[in-house]
Amino acid sequence: MSNIHTTATKTDKELFIKMVLSNWELQISRMNNLLGKLTDAELSAQTAPGRNTGVYLLGHLAAVSDGLFILLGLGERLDPSMDEIFIRNPENSGLEKPSITEIKEYWNKVNSLLAQQISEIRTDEWFTRHTAVSQEDFEKEPHRNKLNIIINRTNHISYHLGQLTYLISK
Amino acid sequence: MSNIHTTATKTDKELFIKMVLSNWELQISRMNNLLGKLTDAELSAQTAPGRNTGVYLLGHLAAVSDGLFILLGLGERLDPSMDEIFIRNPENSGLEKPSITEIKEYWNKVNSLLAQQISEIRTDEWFTRHTAVSQEDFEKEPHRNKLNIIINRTNHISYHLGQLTYLISK
Repeated sequence: MSNIHTTATKTDKELFIKMVLSNWELQISRMNNLLGKLTDAELSAQTAPGRNTGVYLLGHLAAVSDGLFILLGLGERLDPSMDEIFIRNPENSGLEKPSITEIKEYWNKVNSLLAQQISEIRTDEWFTRHTAVSQEDFEKEPHRNKLNIIINRTNHISYHLGQLTYLISK
Repeated sequence: MSNIHTTATKTDKELFIKMVLSNWELQISRMNNLLGKLTDAELSAQTAPGRNTGVYLLGHLAAVSDGLFILLGLGERLDPSMDEIFIRNPENSGLEKPSITEIKEYWNKVNSLLAQQISEIRTDEWFTRHTAVSQEDFEKEPHRNKLNIIINRTNHISYHLGQLTYLISK
């Protein structure tokens, strides 16, 4: 009996994980689809007058995804310097930025390593706390788990994707 | 025994519903927060040169959320004419549009009625198919449930929120 019920619960959880990850992967594939349509010159342009360029937003999204390795307890981030350039500081910070090619490589490298490590996260592990919430807070707010971080970051990609779409000429 | 296990499964589901709905509510509150900062003149401006105005995007988001009443099996949409103006046709369609005040009222009315009806959806009901997927397809793809629609629409709000943010002057 116990096994049957455990399996049932596990199946529910697996379904939740699939729902969240399929939406996450969808936004990444939309982003890659958009990148495939833009020349380097187009990606270097401002998304709107006086707003971030496409290349800055790409670096920003890559750096935020890179932060997931720590938040999900998977290990260290691939490149801490990107955090300084694309998260802690705005585009016009004066900090030297990597080339477009390097930023694209970084985006792809983060995504492929993340996809691989995410696929290895065990079902129950997804419902444990992420590393930015304390054990005490997590007991009061158990929805602040690792899977919730993915929901949040999926929306973050969508947000900037809406802006990046403006790089496509009408 | 059976009761204990049912409760455990139900708790997992309730937690997951809370995760999804809290992200949905977060995007709506961000949208309302942004609306509170914009004058009608600012909201009427294009989000970027040659792109949709804020007021069109607000009507679009309200009309898409209005579609949830049908998709979630809650009833009919509040205003089918909005679908024609803000979803089936682009901004420059020539169709007469409601006033900004009416569009804001529509957005608020859809959200408040939706919030009320969503709070009454039973836990297990969230994991049944939404009305745009057939029973046959749902058996093969059980993640295409009502809750998944909310995840999808949450991302849709984020996407346009990224664009609407450009209405805030720098």
